[in-house]
Order: sequence, then C-alpha cells, then structure tokens
Amino acid sequence: MSTNDTSVGLVRAEHADFETPLDLASGSQLPAYTLVYETYGTLNPDGRNAILICHALSGHHHVAGRYREDDKAAGWWDNMVGPGKPIDTRRFFVVGVNNLGGCHGSTGPSSINPTTGVPWGSSFPVVTVPDWVTAQARLADRLGIDRWAAVIGGSLGGMQALQWAINHPQRVAHALVIASAPRLSAQNIAFNDVARQAILTDPDFHGGDFYAQGMVPRRGLRLARMLGHITYLSDDGMGEKFGRMLRSGEYKFGYDVEFEIESYLRYQGDKFSDYFDANTYLLMTKALDYFDPAKDYGGDLVAALQRATANFLVASFTSDWRFSPERSRELVKALIAADRHVVYGEIESVHGHDAFLMTDPPYVDLMRTYLARVAEEVNA
Amino acid sequence: MSTNDTSVGLVRAEHADFETPLDLASGSQLPAYTLVYETYGTLNPDGRNAILICHALSGHHHVAGRYREDDKAAGWWDNMVGPGKPIDTRRFFVVGVNNLGGCHGSTGPSSINPTTGVPWGSSFPVVTVPDWVTAQARLADRLGIDRWAAVIGGSLGGMQALQWAINHPQRVAHALVIASAPRLSAQNIAFNDVARQAILTDPDFHGGDFYAQGMVPRRGLRLARMLGHITYLSDDGMGEKFGRMLRSGEYKFGYDVEFEIESYLRYQGDKFSDYFDANTYLLMTKALDYFDPAKDYGGDLVAALQRATANFLVASFTSDWRFSPERSRELVKALIAADRHVVYGEIESVHGHDAFLMTDPPYVDLMRTYLARVAEEVNA
Repeated sequence: MSTNDTSVGLVRAEHADFETPLDLASGSQLPAYTLVYETYGTLNPDGRNAILICHALSGHHHVAGRYREDDKAAGWWDNMVGPGKPIDTRRFFVVGVNNLGGCHGSTGPSSINPTTGVPWGSSFPVVTVPDWVTAQARLADRLGIDRWAAVIGGSLGGMQALQWAINHPQRVAHALVIASAPRLSAQNIAFNDVARQAILTDPDFHGGDFYAQGMVPRRGLRLARMLGHITYLSDDGMGEKFGRMLRSGEYKFGYDVEFEIESYLRYQGDKFSDYFDANTYLLMTKALDYFDPAKDYGGDLVAALQRATANFLVASFTSDWRFSPERSRELVKALIAADRHVVYGEIESVHGHDAFLMTDPPYVDLMRTYLARVAEEVNA
Repeated sequence: MSTNDTSVGLVRAEHADFETPLDLASGSQLPAYTLVYETYGTLNPDGRNAILICHALSGHHHVAGRYREDDKAAGWWDNMVGPGKPIDTRRFFVVGVNNLGGCHGSTGPSSINPTTGVPWGSSFPVVTVPDWVTAQARLADRLGIDRWAAVIGGSLGGMQALQWAINHPQRVAHALVIASAPRLSAQNIAFNDVARQAILTDPDFHGGDFYAQGMVPRRGLRLARMLGHITYLSDDGMGEKFGRMLRSGEYKFGYDVEFEIESYLRYQGDKFSDYFDANTYLLMTKALDYFDPAKDYGGDLVAALQRATANFLVASFTSDWRFSPERSRELVKALIAADRHVVYGEIESVHGHDAFLMTDPPYVDLMRTYLARVAEEVNA
C-alpha cells in the first residue's frame, strides 16, 4: 500500500453554527458559537461507525489529510487516521473538532464577540472539559450521530474521552484514553502556572486584550511553549537526540544560542508564538488543571466511573513523566473497582509524552488490534 | 544539647581583596576582585582541619549562624554546620565563600567596575566552576590552608568539590559530592535555558545593564525561580504538601492565584526577584551548563578522575529528578574505574533535589559518620 493509498487525501474544514446558548461550568453562558470540524470516511446508514477524535492543548480539528496537494504537513494525527491505518477510514466515519476557546476556527478569545464587535479577549469565559463535551455532543446531534463507536484522545484529549464516557454513557461504545490522567498532580499544575505567568506578565498581554493594541504577547507564549516541550520529551530521549551537542563545537562564553537543545527549544517557541493565541493557551491549561471528574462524586473516581458503560482502552508510555504510567494505572484500578471493562497497555517508548503522537510499533499494534475489534462490532 | 549549644552563634562576613589578575576559562581576565567569606571554628596550628563549603546556584558564604541575635533565619546550612553537628565546628575550621559573579558581596555583575565607575552588568565575564576553584584556592592560600580536610558541596557546590579534587589533588583530602552530577543532561540544560530566556527577554533586562536604568528584570527572575522550584521538589513531595488544594476551596474560573501550589511558587518567585541579581542567575546557570571535567580529558571522565587523590563521598536522593541517583552512580562508577576510594549513599527521601539542604535522618547519619572519620584523620 503506497503512502497515498493510506491518506484520507484532500480534506476541508466545515463550520457548524449553534444559536442555542451554552451554559458553562463556570456559571457563564455562551449565547451562540461556531465549531469548526472535519470528517473523513462515510457514516453508515445506521450511524454506528462514527469516531470522535479529541485534541490536546495545542491541537485542532485538522486531524488527517491535506487542504492542498502542496501542503507541507498533513493533519496532526495523519499517521493514525486513514485508509488501512489503525483508525481506518474505510471502516469508520472520523470526526475531528476544534474545541471552544480554541484559535483554529471555533469560537474563542480571538473571535469577534458579536455583542461588542471586537475580539472577546479577556471577556471570553473559561471553559472546561465537561463544557467541551457538551458542545461536542451538540455537534454529534447535528451530524446524526447518536452513539460514538469510539471517542479517542491523547493527553487533554484523553480527558475528554473519559468525560464523554461518564457524562453520556449511552452515547459512547468505547473510550480510548491515551497518555492521560484522571486529574493533574501538583507538579502538573505547577508547570501550567509557570506557563500562564509567563503569558500573564508579558507586558504585551494587556490583560488579555492585546488584539486591540495590535500586539501579541510573543515572549510569554514562547517561554510557555519552550517549557511545555521539555515536559513532552523524556530525559533519555532528549539525551539521545541532543545530548550536550554544541552548535559550533565549542563554548562561546555568552548567552546566545549554544547547545543544540537550546536551538531546538527556541525554534519551537518562536514558531508557536507566531500562530497560537495566548488566551487560548491560558484557557486550555486551566481546563487541564480543573479536570477532575471525581469531584462531582465527592472525590470518588470509582463512583464517577460507575456512570460509564463504555469499554475502555487505557494506554501509557514508560518514559512519559508529564502523565506517567502511574497516573494511567490509577485510572485502570478505578475502572476495575467500578467493574468496567478495560484493556490497559503500558508501552515501552523513549518518546515521553509525545509518544502518543508517534508510531512506536507496539503502540500502533495496540491501536490497530483494539480498533479492528471495534470495527467488527460496528459491522456485526 | 539545646539549639543554642549547636549553633555557631553570631558570625560576621570577612572580605579578601585580590590584586593579582585572574585568568578565566573564557580567555578573559579579571584584573582584581574581592571574595566575601565566613569562617566558623578554629584552624589547628598545623592547618589540617579546614573544610570548604561550596554553594549552589542561589547560595552564598553565609553558611551558618546569625549576624544579629534577632535574625529570623540562620545561614543556609545551619542544620549541618555547628558544634555537635555533622560538620562539627568544635573539630573543624569551616569556610564558606561567595563565588565570583555572585550577588552577596563577592565581585560580580552588580559590583562597580573600577575602570568605568559603573556596575559591570553585561561586561562581567562568564565564569566557570574551574574559575571558582582557582579563586577559592587563592583564598585558601590567604587563610594559610595548604590542604582541605574536606571540600563539600551539594548540587553546583558538589561540582566544585569534584573540580577541586581533579585540579588540586594535593590540596583535598576528602571530596563530598552531594546531589550532583558529573555534567548536565540535555534536559538540565533545557530548564536552564528557559530560565535564562525568561530573564534575557524581560524588557527590563536592558541587555544586562538594567542597573543604570534603575530597573530590575523582576518578571524574568520570578519565572526563573518558579521553574527552578518545580525542579527542586519531587512530584510526590509536592503532591503530599500541596496536592490539588485550593486556597478558597472552590474553582474561581479565572487566572488569579487559586491552587496552593500556585501560591507557593509565586511567593517564592516574588521573594527571589526582590534580592537576587539577574546577571548572577544567568552566570550561575551557565557555569552549570559548562561544567564537564571530562572535557579536558577527551571526554573521558575516568581519566579526569585519575588525577584526583582524594577520598570521595557521593550521595544522592531517590526522589531527586534534577540530578537523579543515576547521575551520581555514573560518577561512582567512573571513580571505581579510576581506582579511587569512594563511599556512595543513595538516600530514600521524598524531598527531591532540595533534600541536600534538609535533614532526612539517613542523610544526616551518613554525613555525621563520614565526617567523624575525617575528624579522626585530622587529629591522628
């Protein structure tokens, strides 16, 4: 099978406008909103073969394929989604959606607030994982999908899959929760707070209303992204890839870029600050911090999970220290205690948290095998 | 023994001025400089009972005791240094010194450059661990200390102890290298680079010459320190101390301080930015990045260590992920391969990298036992 045969090919983004107000966890209300999404494959007449892909902190709806033949990069999970790939678009109807508060087309802080005629900025409400699930459920209604064959996500995306299974048990057959956690640790929150403080204290942030000033808090976004990248990679993986390599081979005794790892991080930070919205970054990290499905059940994760009826695939990666295997095992133990059906894969990988986006063969095999079974159910 | 009996009591800082130029690893030269230092205990007539304490990134010469009876805090290692304590000032003459480039009294970027009459700022040369050792050796000469009974340090301080043993084998009887590493990993350098970028891109940094502007790059220093603190604590320790505790008990749906861990980090960052010099922070992190004693020996750490004649105590802490036990074991293996005498302690602790400043009983016991033996040698 050539590369082309395994690509969903040319795709385009769709927009869904919602006029019914959305009540948010914060108590605020979003009067109307737009979700941008993409779909690949064909929905069966019975509507039972749909898969929802939920994105992580900096992800979006463009999961697979290309907009134009000459696009340099395909969608962010193109290695997992396509004909013959683990999330096989010959069998599944796959939906990718940009979450509310995002900066890739769905209503967010950089969108124009119709009431004021200027970008929402600081007045955009904080949204949470349960809010996203509610908005995604409305999109499912719009698309004629009563029940997802699977809801799948890595990292913050895995949290959405978990929340779907708890909040809409009848609508989720399988939840695939990858490189995720049932809630953040103090260390996770701490890293998020440093990133937020970098943005909030950037003089160009202007309290979140930098759009009107024609400015972008680039310094803060850059630092947030640099720090993020450290936590996405493993110590060993970073050592293998960069070690102590110097760009010029010798010490320069100054503060310009010198080690290869510095060059990599600064490049990633610069690139990110060119396109990502600072308010979206704040909001996404806050959604991470707040995520805690046990909270509504007196802190009892088992009680929360007893609401779910889905089958679960939980997967973690040995070198992931942002959401370590220990956090996934915590979830698996709670699922077992709740008498839910769960398959758990702890995958040897040097790729750290980023492994969920990559193609370590045992990971691809696990996804392929699990989803082949889901496909059989759908066509049974 | 009451607390007072184990304190060195009231102390005062001394200054040593050096007029002989110091040639630095960078190729620059420091024409003259001052080192601020403190001493506790009494030097034996044979000068054989002296111990040098080397400080870490944000440390200084004020190791033990108080300047005034009503000082709230004692020196930074007061729990380890004093009469009856592991570094027993009834037996040892203990020297603490602020390193060149520091901001606590020794010549550094915030000192007045006598040639220009204004603070050195960006023109202060980058100094390295070997440079510090050379400057400390001159201080030892001044104090009449030919050979240290021990050179002791944690973290960056441990690197100085190691460098002393390699560069001045005849002058070091014991080197105590605690919570340290023979060189930084890519991840270590990456964290340092984010901290440096936070300072370098703070608009108030003014290329390092902020003194003249009457400004301090407070935002950058604050972020650097917040990030630093995350790496000093362990995930578990942070979880035990802060967990997901909220200051007000409920989510606020905004970006003000909310979780206890946020409050802790911001407080630490604010406090630090009030007194620490930004150029010193840059310089100290660069000294960390550059430290690599194997480099002068074709990358062969064993060859570097064969220069040393000291006995070594290497200690690490199980939950330290900034300089993990693995890094200490790397050093121990090289010491064994170099046929050096080494005692290694891997200490169970939840306190992360900070454990080297704390009093986990197995750590205190190890230090006490090891140094009691050193004291016997001195008085033999």
